[in-house]
Amino acid sequence: MSLRVGIIGGGQLARMMIAPAVELGLDVRVLAEQAGMSAAIAATAVGDYRDLDIVREFARDVDVVTFDHEHVPQDVLRALVDDGVAVHPGPDALFYAQDKLRMRAKLAELGMPQPVWAAVSDAAGLQAFIDDNGGRAVVKTPRGGYDGKGVRVVSSADEAEDWLDALEADGELLVEELVDFTRELAQQVARTPSGAFRAYPVVETVQRGGVCAEVIAPAPRAGDRLRDMTEMIGVGIAQGIGVTGMLAVELFETVDERILVNELAMRPHNSGHWSQDGAVTGQFEQHLRAVLDLPLGDPSPRAPWSVMINILGGPESDTVESRIPSALAAHPGVKVHTYGKAARPGRKVGHVNLSGDDLDAVVSDARGAAAHFEG
Amino acid sequence: MSLRVGIIGGGQLARMMIAPAVELGLDVRVLAEQAGMSAAIAATAVGDYRDLDIVREFARDVDVVTFDHEHVPQDVLRALVDDGVAVHPGPDALFYAQDKLRMRAKLAELGMPQPVWAAVSDAAGLQAFIDDNGGRAVVKTPRGGYDGKGVRVVSSADEAEDWLDALEADGELLVEELVDFTRELAQQVARTPSGAFRAYPVVETVQRGGVCAEVIAPAPRAGDRLRDMTEMIGVGIAQGIGVTGMLAVELFETVDERILVNELAMRPHNSGHWSQDGAVTGQFEQHLRAVLDLPLGDPSPRAPWSVMINILGGPESDTVESRIPSALAAHPGVKVHTYGKAARPGRKVGHVNLSGDDLDAVVSDARGAAAHFEG
Repeated sequence: MSLRVGIIGGGQLARMMIAPAVELGLDVRVLAEQAGMSAAIAATAVGDYRDLDIVREFARDVDVVTFDHEHVPQDVLRALVDDGVAVHPGPDALFYAQDKLRMRAKLAELGMPQPVWAAVSDAAGLQAFIDDNGGRAVVKTPRGGYDGKGVRVVSSADEAEDWLDALEADGELLVEELVDFTRELAQQVARTPSGAFRAYPVVETVQRGGVCAEVIAPAPRAGDRLRDMTEMIGVGIAQGIGVTGMLAVELFETVDERILVNELAMRPHNSGHWSQDGAVTGQFEQHLRAVLDLPLGDPSPRAPWSVMINILGGPESDTVESRIPSALAAHPGVKVHTYGKAARPGRKVGHVNLSGDDLDAVVSDARGAAAHFEG
Repeated sequence: MSLRVGIIGGGQLARMMIAPAVELGLDVRVLAEQAGMSAAIAATAVGDYRDLDIVREFARDVDVVTFDHEHVPQDVLRALVDDGVAVHPGPDALFYAQDKLRMRAKLAELGMPQPVWAAVSDAAGLQAFIDDNGGRAVVKTPRGGYDGKGVRVVSSADEAEDWLDALEADGELLVEELVDFTRELAQQVARTPSGAFRAYPVVETVQRGGVCAEVIAPAPRAGDRLRDMTEMIGVGIAQGIGVTGMLAVELFETVDERILVNELAMRPHNSGHWSQDGAVTGQFEQHLRAVLDLPLGDPSPRAPWSVMINILGGPESDTVESRIPSALAAHPGVKVHTYGKAARPGRKVGHVNLSGDDLDAVVSDARGAAAHFEG
């Protein structure tokens, strides 16, 4: 009998797990938030992932529960574990992905290099942090942010007044130094419940407007020292937090060549989409293997350079699908991945992957293909 | 709106079209012969593909109809075309895949190199052919054979007596010289309704018991002359017959270095499974692009060598899925593709793909992985 994987959430990450699940003969089932989502072809249930009854019913006949996102509430996760369901990543690990303040505290405990940070609960505390750190800082709501939401660069506590006012009794905001970074990197690690792990090559990510725009794998100008450092950070966090499945560690590289941990994601991640076509084992297959405690695959690159460019909905764009013919015609070597989502401005609706020997040529070709989708 | 592709037949070829269809944002629908088949995840209808009403209902709201196999009867295909449905490959082309005698006659008309062949309707005719061709010959039933079924090597007309007796009034058998070949090759070509085409590199196929066992891509010891020759044959047949979608031409290479056409398949083919992981554009994506008249992708290999090994059910094997952990553990670079089928002895239930720089190492590693599945 096939192993049964239940994925909570019907977005593009669930969608991209379907192909490797079919290849490996897994019985993949999705609990989607609504009908017609990205992973609709594998949706066996539709309902609210915050509703324990719905999640419990979905989890009843699968061998493992995993996730398209990190938003399933702790009480729901813990009830599943109490029911005897295999939940990967588990609630203890996901806790740190769900709360950025707890994450910072845990990383400090693990001795990981981080930006200067603090928990603040009022304007005076925030202003003091700003004054101590060069007159500017990054304020983050500990929960619920993604793709730049819940993150604000401020030079005065006034600019976070609304967030401070909205804090509950014991509430705190996370404040971090504004890091003077030269570029952003990402390190992915897969880890199984048995503790086996494999690290992907560190990649360079280019963000625009708080959203990942491009990824180059492996990161250019990455010597042995940098690679060893990021791998140690990734593996250290995966082991230290007990992550199961894919972990992505977003990193800053600073002017003075320090590496600092920015964010964590405990699921397949945009910074790893290149691996679908550019690595021996793509991150979606690796995630499934990891959460099922199967042997992990080889994460080595299949080409000297692989580039991923996100396709964002533009003001003029109709649907991704309608632009495919022109993109394919001009770029016969590019792999197009669509998410089955309506193209709203700024929304990630797909990506293109391309690999090759000449980085400049690969970047240029991939950007050209992605541009076909943005009107 | 997404383009809608209807696939008739729910076997492994339909199953392997699903992943690229999802990537390209196509709405893929399968008419399966029964519930629970290989392509079940995309099955939107279950029924008999020989029943025009069922096929017509299935075809009513798709943009193109294509196939998992070549067995849909001509009258059903032609009725769809008369209804205005885009059917690719179309009935005129499929006719030659459905009838080996007609195929031989058409290839002769196109000037393609073939084994000596004849149509015979009685024992005297068959015996004369055998006597004229070295005392042995290959007899084939023109219709319904696959994977070695409907093919028999004989040295006397008596050995085909049952087939001769079963012939209808105007019925004929195909008889061919027993070719003294050194190896078998396969040439794939994708062609669109607009007439665009792309040829894959010629591959070497190794058959065991009439069933494809291994494929090496590209074919070793294939010089420019051989490559040009097989590509000319493939493109010539695709254009000459008007094939749309993927065409596979199975070829003999003879002791005296001639290339002779053995069989044709007008669909993705076992000899092209390597391309899923070993080519820039895999044959299943290419087939979908071709039948939708989208621009074709780059068929270039992604590595010096790619090897495909079929997984056959063995007398001791339980399920493919149960053997996956040991195979993955020992062979972390291998890609496993399962078909969701029960493992009966000799039945193709999956395959493994592996690419690399050293052919011997790749073959050895891939064979080792496949062996894990055969008990």
